[in-house]
Amino acid sequence: MANWSAADHQFMSRAVQIAWQGLYTTEPNPRVGCVLVKDGVAIAEGWHQIAGEGHAEVNALRSAGDNATGCTAYVTLEPCSHFGKTPPCADGLINAGVSEVIVGMVDPNPQVSGKGISKLEQAGIQVRSGLMESQCRELNPGFIKRMASGMPYVRLKMAASLDGRTAMASGESQWITGPLARQDVQRLRARSSAIISGVGSIIKDDSSLTVRESELGLANAEQIVSRQPLRVVLDSAGRMPGSAKMLTLPGNTLIVSCVPVPAYIDGLDRVEWLKLPAADGGIDLSLLLQELAKRDCNEVLVETGATLAGAFIDAQLVDEFVLYQAMKLLGSRARPMFLLPFDRMSEQVGFDLRDSRMLGDDIRLTLVPKKESKA
Amino acid sequence: MANWSAADHQFMSRAVQIAWQGLYTTEPNPRVGCVLVKDGVAIAEGWHQIAGEGHAEVNALRSAGDNATGCTAYVTLEPCSHFGKTPPCADGLINAGVSEVIVGMVDPNPQVSGKGISKLEQAGIQVRSGLMESQCRELNPGFIKRMASGMPYVRLKMAASLDGRTAMASGESQWITGPLARQDVQRLRARSSAIISGVGSIIKDDSSLTVRESELGLANAEQIVSRQPLRVVLDSAGRMPGSAKMLTLPGNTLIVSCVPVPAYIDGLDRVEWLKLPAADGGIDLSLLLQELAKRDCNEVLVETGATLAGAFIDAQLVDEFVLYQAMKLLGSRARPMFLLPFDRMSEQVGFDLRDSRMLGDDIRLTLVPKKESKA
Repeated sequence: MANWSAADHQFMSRAVQIAWQGLYTTEPNPRVGCVLVKDGVAIAEGWHQIAGEGHAEVNALRSAGDNATGCTAYVTLEPCSHFGKTPPCADGLINAGVSEVIVGMVDPNPQVSGKGISKLEQAGIQVRSGLMESQCRELNPGFIKRMASGMPYVRLKMAASLDGRTAMASGESQWITGPLARQDVQRLRARSSAIISGVGSIIKDDSSLTVRESELGLANAEQIVSRQPLRVVLDSAGRMPGSAKMLTLPGNTLIVSCVPVPAYIDGLDRVEWLKLPAADGGIDLSLLLQELAKRDCNEVLVETGATLAGAFIDAQLVDEFVLYQAMKLLGSRARPMFLLPFDRMSEQVGFDLRDSRMLGDDIRLTLVPKKESKA
Repeated sequence: MANWSAADHQFMSRAVQIAWQGLYTTEPNPRVGCVLVKDGVAIAEGWHQIAGEGHAEVNALRSAGDNATGCTAYVTLEPCSHFGKTPPCADGLINAGVSEVIVGMVDPNPQVSGKGISKLEQAGIQVRSGLMESQCRELNPGFIKRMASGMPYVRLKMAASLDGRTAMASGESQWITGPLARQDVQRLRARSSAIISGVGSIIKDDSSLTVRESELGLANAEQIVSRQPLRVVLDSAGRMPGSAKMLTLPGNTLIVSCVPVPAYIDGLDRVEWLKLPAADGGIDLSLLLQELAKRDCNEVLVETGATLAGAFIDAQLVDEFVLYQAMKLLGSRARPMFLLPFDRMSEQVGFDLRDSRMLGDDIRLTLVPKKESKA
């Protein structure tokens, strides 16, 4: 374990902080921050803003200019060593004459992990890694999981009453939670590569599943909404209506079905269809997630009703459960959060609480499944 | 509005703090604290510890001795002016030569409110009231409500999963919440005058509804458990088993029924029975609470299943809802928190959140009903 100084922590902390500015815009790339330090003073910084444009290191080097020579670079993620849409960052650091590189975490892709560091070391640059690794990892749960396992990070969102209900039996459901909770859901959508819903929700509510500029409450909302997350509609039996509002909105829609792609349907002709095998009476969710990872989806948001949400939970495919609780009771006839037909206590699903906060009058809980929850 | 100084707040704050030491032991009296101040220095303090023993003012005066002459007394509740089990505190303050009395709140009993203050003023003592009134009121929600309205303060407690379930359909329910939450329930019991449950819970779980010394985690636990809250079993049809464990435990049991008191049943011969008229198919809960107030019950704790708990909510008889949430899902077949057969969103019951905290891995929410919640 490297012996990190207070100054090391201070500069990496800043690199993490500025990396978060890319939260809503770097997809499908990771969020990365870089701080250049000379004689104990930060002289330049940069972060990755938009895929296809400069990486964090390149932006910081550009800002430093000739001053970069002899610097120490603090970077949240191992610099890349390959040509993508931009040249390798490792080459940039070498060419700029940087003398030391401190890395938060190595590249999560097992095929390239360590290659950027080797390249730097071969050029005579001192490299140390692992500083504030957990904070650096938090920036990119989806990118890391996809690179490491070929699956996206699955975040399941639910808004419910204290008695665990999401809507009246009739479907009446408007305004369970308040405006700050709904704004937060917009932000969850904005950071996601894809939003998964069931066709039932589309048929019932004609939901749009878009990120709306006016509801984000963020300064760069206009830039954020220029990329819309992929809308993924699970429609095992081919019931998607061609009149669905979402089909007229910006962004792409993927309809996933177990039946052959239907003949031309007005409104559905420009929509992508994906046929997947059925499993347990529905679409094979694990295969679906693999397909989304192949489409470069890092974080996916599941926004759906009790049946599909319950299936994701039951299949242990949820990485994070975000629960917005309204301080109210909707009663015992109202719709349950999850269709999870457990009979025994040992079937319960347990979570660890990662964060709890008030959003207006509502509580937001961020939970991750306990690893040993299933007996 | 009186013009209070920082010192006034400091001394009344201390009086409130020491009054809380009587939380579990003053029943059916209020929790009261008193601080005596001379030349800007607190020279003595006292609080009411046990009904029948000295009131806060008397304990403080005893501690001050001759020094009390010329003091200012800070007392959380208006000094009493009548002979009860002890002589009037107003007389004590007058006899001790106290020159000023600062009162947190006037007596909530409309029949005596202001009489203690008048008596002090007639003796030439300057009296001001209303300092930190809300903090002083918080000490005695039950005593205040009973004095003002002839009804006890009703606290409803529930332990549930995130999806709002309390037990499996089979009844299996052990260990939903952790040890700190269960300790907290013991403390809710300990501060209550009575615990209300349904006979169904007794038949099913043979619950004891007692305060257990070993589970309180409090230094004065032995003293606390010497008074057990009245156990109130709602048994409209007369099903109470004579073999119920609670009948063998310290403390009194009151069985409330809509049928005539049954003939001698082994085990039930020393239990008090109360016959109340039925309302909406069950016991008239409002009448029940009036009866408990007549028996000097300040705070009552409702610990019961979905049907009776739902009836209390539906009748708008709950003053405070304490919800222990376990970070788990029990599934859609498990038992609901409340039997509340609402059909429309407008029937929802809304709460204001007063407090939220972690107890081990569980969350405790303290909620009060919104006044305008019912449409």
